[in-house]
Amino acid sequence: MTTLEQLNSSAAQDVPAFVKTLHGIYEHSPWIPERAAKLGPFANITALKQALQGVVTSAERAEQLGLIRAHPELAGKAAIAGELTAESTGEQAKAGLNLCTPEEFATLQKLNSDYNAKFGFPFILAVKGATGKGLTRQQIIATFTRRLRNQPEDELREALRQIGRIAEMRINDLLAYTPAIGATIMEWAEEIGAWSEDEGALTCTYMTDAHRRTADQIAHWMREAGMHAHIDAVGNVVGRYLSTDPQAKTLMTGSHYDTVRNGGKYDGREGILLPIAIVKHMHEKGETLPFHFEIVAFSEEEGVRFKSTFLGSKAIIGQFDLNLLDLTDRDGISMREVLTQAGHDVTAIPKIARDPSDLLGYVEVHIEQGPVLLNRDLPVGIVTSIAGSSRHLVHLKGVASHAGTTPMNMRKDAAATAAEIILYVEQRCSQDQHASLVGTVGQLQVPNGSTNVIPGACTLSLDIRAARDDVRDAAVADVIKKIEEICQRRSVDVTLEKTVAAPAAPCANWLMHQLAAATERAGVKPFELASGAGHDAMTIAKMTDVAMLFTRCGNGGISHNPLETMTADDAEVSAQILLDFLRNFKAKV
Amino acid sequence: MTTLEQLNSSAAQDVPAFVKTLHGIYEHSPWIPERAAKLGPFANITALKQALQGVVTSAERAEQLGLIRAHPELAGKAAIAGELTAESTGEQAKAGLNLCTPEEFATLQKLNSDYNAKFGFPFILAVKGATGKGLTRQQIIATFTRRLRNQPEDELREALRQIGRIAEMRINDLLAYTPAIGATIMEWAEEIGAWSEDEGALTCTYMTDAHRRTADQIAHWMREAGMHAHIDAVGNVVGRYLSTDPQAKTLMTGSHYDTVRNGGKYDGREGILLPIAIVKHMHEKGETLPFHFEIVAFSEEEGVRFKSTFLGSKAIIGQFDLNLLDLTDRDGISMREVLTQAGHDVTAIPKIARDPSDLLGYVEVHIEQGPVLLNRDLPVGIVTSIAGSSRHLVHLKGVASHAGTTPMNMRKDAAATAAEIILYVEQRCSQDQHASLVGTVGQLQVPNGSTNVIPGACTLSLDIRAARDDVRDAAVADVIKKIEEICQRRSVDVTLEKTVAAPAAPCANWLMHQLAAATERAGVKPFELASGAGHDAMTIAKMTDVAMLFTRCGNGGISHNPLETMTADDAEVSAQILLDFLRNFKAKV
Repeated sequence: MTTLEQLNSSAAQDVPAFVKTLHGIYEHSPWIPERAAKLGPFANITALKQALQGVVTSAERAEQLGLIRAHPELAGKAAIAGELTAESTGEQAKAGLNLCTPEEFATLQKLNSDYNAKFGFPFILAVKGATGKGLTRQQIIATFTRRLRNQPEDELREALRQIGRIAEMRINDLLAYTPAIGATIMEWAEEIGAWSEDEGALTCTYMTDAHRRTADQIAHWMREAGMHAHIDAVGNVVGRYLSTDPQAKTLMTGSHYDTVRNGGKYDGREGILLPIAIVKHMHEKGETLPFHFEIVAFSEEEGVRFKSTFLGSKAIIGQFDLNLLDLTDRDGISMREVLTQAGHDVTAIPKIARDPSDLLGYVEVHIEQGPVLLNRDLPVGIVTSIAGSSRHLVHLKGVASHAGTTPMNMRKDAAATAAEIILYVEQRCSQDQHASLVGTVGQLQVPNGSTNVIPGACTLSLDIRAARDDVRDAAVADVIKKIEEICQRRSVDVTLEKTVAAPAAPCANWLMHQLAAATERAGVKPFELASGAGHDAMTIAKMTDVAMLFTRCGNGGISHNPLETMTADDAEVSAQILLDFLRNFKAKV
Repeated sequence: MTTLEQLNSSAAQDVPAFVKTLHGIYEHSPWIPERAAKLGPFANITALKQALQGVVTSAERAEQLGLIRAHPELAGKAAIAGELTAESTGEQAKAGLNLCTPEEFATLQKLNSDYNAKFGFPFILAVKGATGKGLTRQQIIATFTRRLRNQPEDELREALRQIGRIAEMRINDLLAYTPAIGATIMEWAEEIGAWSEDEGALTCTYMTDAHRRTADQIAHWMREAGMHAHIDAVGNVVGRYLSTDPQAKTLMTGSHYDTVRNGGKYDGREGILLPIAIVKHMHEKGETLPFHFEIVAFSEEEGVRFKSTFLGSKAIIGQFDLNLLDLTDRDGISMREVLTQAGHDVTAIPKIARDPSDLLGYVEVHIEQGPVLLNRDLPVGIVTSIAGSSRHLVHLKGVASHAGTTPMNMRKDAAATAAEIILYVEQRCSQDQHASLVGTVGQLQVPNGSTNVIPGACTLSLDIRAARDDVRDAAVADVIKKIEEICQRRSVDVTLEKTVAAPAAPCANWLMHQLAAATERAGVKPFELASGAGHDAMTIAKMTDVAMLFTRCGNGGISHNPLETMTADDAEVSAQILLDFLRNFKAKV
């Protein structure tokens, strides 16, 4: 068995030995460990992985292509001829690629050949899968088909990321390393991810059976981990890992356990399961903290069932508006009825409010839900601010007329007007040097459009977000000014309907610094990014200082979708960072 | 009573008398007849009207504003105080504006004040209406509300057009002139316009009860006008006004009597009723032509019921595909059944085909269905070519991702891609110096779009037309090339589905020249324009030389809509031109 100490020692004194030990990690590419050796010693396995993959991403294009081309085709000729490396043979067999039906084999051969023709290199996929479980042959074929549509530059980067993921798993094997806490988090997420109100999809909305069963399970895991746990009047599952000092203040963490319809398994839930797993780890070792550590599994954040968001965290900060109890779901059932039927006492909701003076702060772990960390080969990132957002619906009214008989200069075309607006939003929101500003037209429609009729109307949505309110406000003002200018010039009527205006919630510097220090100690370069999505931390920020740690999101950063994924290794790194943060936590002075 | 001779004489010898006689035509603006006097003598009443209105449109902006501001408000303070000109008082009373309810009066006062605040001049509307019938108060309020939304420049031109229309009716009154043939055409169009398969809307699709009743009525009018008429096996109503020379060849005219759903009264029908009215006029005077004159009321052009267009004209040229008989309508009834039930012998369809050697040519009168003539203050125009068209459906596939968490530079936004395509189509199709090229994206949709999701898909239609095939083909090629370039750059997949590719049908120069000469003699400057819409003449062009005369379309050029309108005066001018054309017709040598 190889140890990290041995590797560090050979990196310093015997590079050929270092290269030899790692020769199977990156397919036929000794130059990678050779260059990485100079970056040792490695504080931990994560630092080693980061160093090796860093060599790959900073290599010349020709070297990267050489690395990619050194890989075998999936179920390809080399596999048939028995020419794969030992690692590849084992991995491909685990995915059942040696058990293809003739049709599947033919499909894979065709995909291999189309892919090679388009990109000039073989298709590479970490077939062991993100969760550590093997992908099915069907999943492999679906991914292959999807990636064949990528642009060459994007696909090259994707191939390098897959190689990085394969290397990560090979390093784990080499060092007999298991991301134990990460694996626990993934297992738990699988378990509650199966409880849904929809068949074949994960949907867990407020106070449904699936939702209540999930709450009970979370409370159970909290208690097993040595915490005091209860479910409060809005359905938050609250677990407290008590300090030996009863006078101690409380550091809070948490996230939400409800989901969107057909959502992902990690959105929200990571931030509940990860701290429970850490507490379990501490509890098993008899370790306590000099403060009370409270995990809140917020019952509601997504706003799916009652079209009202952050129900759980609003109750915690004492801003749950009791009028919300009269909201009804799509079946006409009120929130009040739903809560009462679930055995909750709605009159107790105001008592949920925490005393801010008891709190040391709040730190939330969450899957990124975007591609930034993935594209930077970083397992985690530190959030600077949760973006505020401005949303509008824009209704354009031009004049519908005959597409054949109305000269170009006599048109009042609502779709062409919308097109100009869309491109301006895109251009204006690409100008932010901090890159936190984003602008999106997600809804776009010419109602009852006909091929031969110039659009008389067009409706579009506008969603502008930024980590800083001044940045967002300036962009919104420019966009609105430009819309008016475009519509004036084109003689098109415009109505702007403001639907959302939420300010940004900046994270507290002192908490960010402590998270960054823990990240550095975990072997990862601290990287800051804004959160474009809203989170429970946004609400909690009204009561106490907050910070957030993001975990890399796989599959191109896709979220709110069953394809949302993360790895046990990344969950482990995130957990180690939060654990280190807790152990080294210093209250604000 | 005033005569045109008197006016011509005073224009030449006694301008003050000319101005005095016409003082009531343009409200408080003697400068208009003063300048028009120099343009005399006027060959006919149309020439007089064109000269007067030409003075208005070529006046300085300040003069135009002065003219507009010389008009009273509708049901305004002047009306209450009894200060209107005699003409205005009569016209406003005819529209029942003296009978407003208190609510209507309050609405009109509010509209007057909003309109004046926006444009700085009073609202002007030829309340007598386009058909010579008075508009209802409800119609006036609806038009007022709609025009209040116009841009100032457009509304100024609209006000001048309304003044021109008011002047036209005042000149008719002054000279005791009635556009008799025009009035007949309008009345007939009203009569058959009331026969519809839909309540409260004009819908007359192939072989419905309304359609067959319309055919019978047309045959009846043809016979009354002295023609031999029959309904052929596809439902065309064919009327022949025979020459005294039985060996004479045939000059053909016509248009279609079917409509789109909720269509206009003049689309197609003008080109049937107008020549019948002319024949009636000739017949009453015992006038014959040196050739047989055949009017074909085509049974089908719009393609509504069986999604197949030009059924009537295809039978006439012998290109009716008998497989079409198996097409079914939305109730599953086949065309064969429908025709058989209506008493038609479908085996006789091939016999409908004409012998091209018997034909002198084909000339079709049609409402413009666009704003070109309206914007040029011209009652008629001569068509140069019926545009060919290319249609495509464009399917874009990007990557749907989170609007908050996906940085601008990592997006594959299908809607932004569509926006770039739309603006390119607009820009490219505005480059044609002959202005016949038009490009339209009429359908545009992000399917299931959400405010907070970057569009992963977008579908748009593409409709490109031009009078010349080389012009259209070049534009289509450029657009397709640009789409591919945009999609490549944005990493968005594109599928182009070609749905229509029809070549242009150029009109015959020798027929156009004869139409232009007749137009000139009618007091109207000949003006050439392309037809962006398809017409029966397109099909007939495969058999014989064709030409088309367009009549001005009111209401901004709106068509395929109940708001489609024309005036009896314009119908009269068009009829006089066709009559003159027939009387002076010279066969191609």
